[in-house]
Amino acid sequence: MAASTPVTRSRTPGAATGSRPGGRSARVRAAVHRAVEELLAEEAGDGLTIPVVAARAGVHATTLYRRWGSVGELLADAATSRFSGEVVVPDTGSLRGDLERWAADVATDLADPDVLALIRATLGAAGEQGACACRGDREDQLAAMIERERARGGAVPTVERAADALLGPLYYRAIFTGEPGSPDWARGLVNLLLPA
Amino acid sequence: MAASTPVTRSRTPGAATGSRPGGRSARVRAAVHRAVEELLAEEAGDGLTIPVVAARAGVHATTLYRRWGSVGELLADAATSRFSGEVVVPDTGSLRGDLERWAADVATDLADPDVLALIRATLGAAGEQGACACRGDREDQLAAMIERERARGGAVPTVERAADALLGPLYYRAIFTGEPGSPDWARGLVNLLLPA
Repeated sequence: MAASTPVTRSRTPGAATGSRPGGRSARVRAAVHRAVEELLAEEAGDGLTIPVVAARAGVHATTLYRRWGSVGELLADAATSRFSGEVVVPDTGSLRGDLERWAADVATDLADPDVLALIRATLGAAGEQGACACRGDREDQLAAMIERERARGGAVPTVERAADALLGPLYYRAIFTGEPGSPDWARGLVNLLLPA
Repeated sequence: MAASTPVTRSRTPGAATGSRPGGRSARVRAAVHRAVEELLAEEAGDGLTIPVVAARAGVHATTLYRRWGSVGELLADAATSRFSGEVVVPDTGSLRGDLERWAADVATDLADPDVLALIRATLGAAGEQGACACRGDREDQLAAMIERERARGGAVPTVERAADALLGPLYYRAIFTGEPGSPDWARGLVNLLLPA
């Protein structure tokens, strides 16, 4: 997944980014995130421990303990890197068009088994902090699209209501039903929020 | 998990039923579920292993391995017990009234820190199987309320759409935002589904 280039994503909140973006610190972070992805893809989630990740990443375990403290924090950092700044906010000229395209993109992302494995592992190991990392900046993206429509003079829903109508079912289907929604289904959700 | 038996699913939370309610098997299951709840409440989720649960429950670890196989299956069983048959389907005389009361009940349940800890741990350890256990029979409950309205001759949404509009935001808020919705907010969700 895209987390193999987390270095450039420095807008990530709570992330353990190094002060020198291309430096050793960033390389370690990239290697560790990649190791986490690989291990989760191998369904080694149960045995995901700091020493196991360190061995796969080719980094001393002490470096990982010093930087992340626990597997939970490490996973929350990987999730932050993965779910923030990922989906480009579309600009189609209308709020409905923007939301339809954005919801379809989020649905596609949440149908990726690697993404689902990362979310489940992060929820399990990192509790509430990890959960918020899995939401990333998606509510900020909704807010940006809604704000643009408001500036155009259009009637807009609240960000909260948009999150309920779109992110709610998108995450619920992906995580709790084992049947992530299709992009077409996701586009249809916009009708719940903005009746024709 | 259901394979491991548990036979008739109890209508009471956390309670364990065996084929002989009150038999040794049921007592073991009850003790194990209680041990899981206690350990999760102590935020011992990270260290939740079969031997740790066995010690707390006062049961031989071999018994647990034989019955559940892994911590993931054990958690999925605990979640099934907790989330199935929990919320009584209301019967207020109208679909709107039923859904409002039901959504408020689900919101109250999902605001319980112990419930959130169980869901997060189950998702982390039991993957997709665990995720479905955390949804329990809530879509069946929606289906029952919708079917009753249909029998009365009313216009009804599909169960899928009702799940999107109600379970989506209920689970999303509880799990991914760290701020579970209030019962009043949950009642308001029904307006997304059934515009006035």
